[in-house]
Amino acid sequence: MKNALRVRRSENFADWYQEVIREADLAENSGVRGCMVIKPWGFAIWENLQQKLDRLIKETGHDNCYFPIFIPLELMQKEAAHVEGFAKEMAVVTHHRLVMKDGKLVPDGELESPLIVRPTSETIIGEAMARWIKSYRDLPLKLNQWANVVRWEMRPRLFLRTSEFLWQEGHTAHATRDEAIEETKLMLEVYRRVVEGAMRIPTIPGEKSVSERFPGADATHTIEAMMQDGRALQAGTSHFLGQNFAKAANISFQDKEGGVSHAYTTSWGASTRLIGALIMTHSDDDGLRLPPKMAPQHVVIVPILRDEASRDEVIQAAETLAKRLRAQRFDDEPVRVKVDLRDDSPANKRWAWIKKGVPFVVELGPRDVAAGTVALVRRDAIADKRNLTMDEFVGRLSDELNELDGVLHDAALAYRKANMVEGVASFADLTEHFETKGGTGFVTAKYSGDPGIDAKLGELGLTIRCLPYEQSGTEGKCLVTGAPATVDAIYAKAY
Amino acid sequence: MKNALRVRRSENFADWYQEVIREADLAENSGVRGCMVIKPWGFAIWENLQQKLDRLIKETGHDNCYFPIFIPLELMQKEAAHVEGFAKEMAVVTHHRLVMKDGKLVPDGELESPLIVRPTSETIIGEAMARWIKSYRDLPLKLNQWANVVRWEMRPRLFLRTSEFLWQEGHTAHATRDEAIEETKLMLEVYRRVVEGAMRIPTIPGEKSVSERFPGADATHTIEAMMQDGRALQAGTSHFLGQNFAKAANISFQDKEGGVSHAYTTSWGASTRLIGALIMTHSDDDGLRLPPKMAPQHVVIVPILRDEASRDEVIQAAETLAKRLRAQRFDDEPVRVKVDLRDDSPANKRWAWIKKGVPFVVELGPRDVAAGTVALVRRDAIADKRNLTMDEFVGRLSDELNELDGVLHDAALAYRKANMVEGVASFADLTEHFETKGGTGFVTAKYSGDPGIDAKLGELGLTIRCLPYEQSGTEGKCLVTGAPATVDAIYAKAY
Repeated sequence: MKNALRVRRSENFADWYQEVIREADLAENSGVRGCMVIKPWGFAIWENLQQKLDRLIKETGHDNCYFPIFIPLELMQKEAAHVEGFAKEMAVVTHHRLVMKDGKLVPDGELESPLIVRPTSETIIGEAMARWIKSYRDLPLKLNQWANVVRWEMRPRLFLRTSEFLWQEGHTAHATRDEAIEETKLMLEVYRRVVEGAMRIPTIPGEKSVSERFPGADATHTIEAMMQDGRALQAGTSHFLGQNFAKAANISFQDKEGGVSHAYTTSWGASTRLIGALIMTHSDDDGLRLPPKMAPQHVVIVPILRDEASRDEVIQAAETLAKRLRAQRFDDEPVRVKVDLRDDSPANKRWAWIKKGVPFVVELGPRDVAAGTVALVRRDAIADKRNLTMDEFVGRLSDELNELDGVLHDAALAYRKANMVEGVASFADLTEHFETKGGTGFVTAKYSGDPGIDAKLGELGLTIRCLPYEQSGTEGKCLVTGAPATVDAIYAKAY
Repeated sequence: MKNALRVRRSENFADWYQEVIREADLAENSGVRGCMVIKPWGFAIWENLQQKLDRLIKETGHDNCYFPIFIPLELMQKEAAHVEGFAKEMAVVTHHRLVMKDGKLVPDGELESPLIVRPTSETIIGEAMARWIKSYRDLPLKLNQWANVVRWEMRPRLFLRTSEFLWQEGHTAHATRDEAIEETKLMLEVYRRVVEGAMRIPTIPGEKSVSERFPGADATHTIEAMMQDGRALQAGTSHFLGQNFAKAANISFQDKEGGVSHAYTTSWGASTRLIGALIMTHSDDDGLRLPPKMAPQHVVIVPILRDEASRDEVIQAAETLAKRLRAQRFDDEPVRVKVDLRDDSPANKRWAWIKKGVPFVVELGPRDVAAGTVALVRRDAIADKRNLTMDEFVGRLSDELNELDGVLHDAALAYRKANMVEGVASFADLTEHFETKGGTGFVTAKYSGDPGIDAKLGELGLTIRCLPYEQSGTEGKCLVTGAPATVDAIYAKAY
């Protein structure tokens, strides 16, 4: 059977990814270098993700707020020494006016000091925390914001690397080290719950190695997911910043005994990049496949309008069916149903919704109406068109959605298991796996903390993705020195 | 009785406004000129507003999406001639990198052509529409985005005028003039429903006079509200753009007959400015007063913890009461209740929540627990502390919330009526009202369309707020020429 996309995953993964996005109408490049337009279907998926994440962020005691998009250069400067490693590809605002000169708009009103469009908000939020926190009574302070951030990208890719992206960034301050560490882990678990539970992307939670930490952090925790080309994608990170940022920004408080201490801070973020992860985890050669909890529509009904005589009757039957379906619940919400009345052929419509990843496409023609049946395609088995009575379909819908949910998750997990090699013993074996054998996927091997490892990995285009929480407890050898080492790490190529 | 704020509305409205914001902890100025930090309580109010508006925007068939924050200068240039009047105070990005030079961060990587931080998105969305719309089948196209925008402010005021603000901007394209006009009016009605229905701010809907239109629009519709200093605040605008923007951006389509036409477009926006309107409409000399539908918490319970012996019992009773209250519904949602366990005195806590505008502050001490009662303050009558049984309070809560909702609306409407003078006959009378008599508020008088009116009004610091939909049908005289005129207009000082 011919596939709906022209490019297959197995042939050219990068081109396939672009085609999935284009055919599902999720997003497109804009005229501004590296900035994307998120189109309605893509944005509705993002809104579902936002809603789920936002609920958990609030349930865990965080308040949403909003900080300015601009960061004064001097403030950046204050942290610059501290966060040496931080990417400095940032958008710099130098003027605050346009004037017309010889019929052309030109910048005018040069600022005394440039402003940076936020690449992340540690500095500006840290400055506010320093003002707001005076006593232990003001702690913990647990803030979150949904915002756009800008990091200039020389090699942009839709959702994965864009100069502007949308995200949430959480920033918290605590009186004690333990409490801040607990917060860091709690928020990673929040990410894991949403990414695995709603997006159905299997992840491996763990800690980053020293060189992969967020610059300035004492520890970075991460959930790592495997895409269908075997590469890793970091699907959420949570940073324990120790007192480093608190000292740079002077976030201090009077403790119960009257002494003054620096707070311990954390930060954590998840972005529109996750939509890229969703696409690369679940899509197939017929386009996007959406886990039901992320789908803007669960069911699209395509009425087959053969002639004027039956037209009204079929449309009415479609609306009646939609209403019955909307009375069902899935994931604690009414089932989302659309009747597609656009001016196009049923086959075109069916394929459009398949490529958009809708869980169920239902066709309903005059004969179906007469017989009380529907013709049904579930996104994980599009070759298998089924005929059900309307009653059967309505009654089974939520079970079927749950089944599809499980199928997508299990397929992703099976892929990861099939592409994971455990316990590689030496750097030579690692090289052989990734280079000689053309292997992909994740490899577990030992990690001793020897800083020499990063350069060696760099030559292979590999990084350490994380030191998984779940450790084997076995003993092995450091890949650099051959000395005994016990910590398991995951090695992979990454997005 | 002494008031909770130091400044009274009647003494210094501008200072009072600042104090309401500070004491309710809504927002503050940041280190970046004109940019504000929206703090958790202020942001939660904004989220309530967003949620209500977003629901209606979706129910009326619009899709959310997201367009880049940067607009290429050349694109701006294309519309520049067209939108001559448009404010050109914009943030201009000229570099894309920071480098460290002699220990200092300095801008580097000059862009070939500058980028503008969007002041509004007509240009960039228009460019996309031109690409997306090919045939009448693609129409109507009804988009909305929630975004931050930047218009450099020389004289910023929290919420009212900030260099960066948050808003939604709707942009639609239609095949016919009539459909676009209908859309323009529909979205004004959506604004009116939220601003009057949820924010309880009375408004006067109408059309702007020619000189007050959005630059480039064929018509601007507005809802105008009166603040407690008698000045007008534009609480939402909806623009019928005719084919003006469609021609500039070349948004054209093949119609059913095979011809090619330019689309008719609209745009409409509402911003964080509405929070300023909320504050200035409902607050009193004791701080913010929140209409219940906008309140982040409906009830705050302050446990009175006199001694260790009764501490646990009181806290448990407070939590039990909170749970019972949360099982009640208001405005189609569970009642929002907080138990305030912060380390502070009950009186301080009570006043803090009064100043934050919470509808009900409930105090609960050991004697209340024993007697099954609560001591209650409703925000519109804080001098009147009431004692109710817990059962009474739980049973009456939703009625009381509705009552408060009505009280706030009626007070605002009464204020407007008391400060509105109808049918002023001449410019001399208008001058007398606003200058000689020190009058404020709204004045209705005739408007003939004579362009001479704007300069004359400018001298008095007045503008025409709108030509209300509701017209008296009387005949009168043009304020400029004295010629007969029939159209009523509202004249006022405005924010």
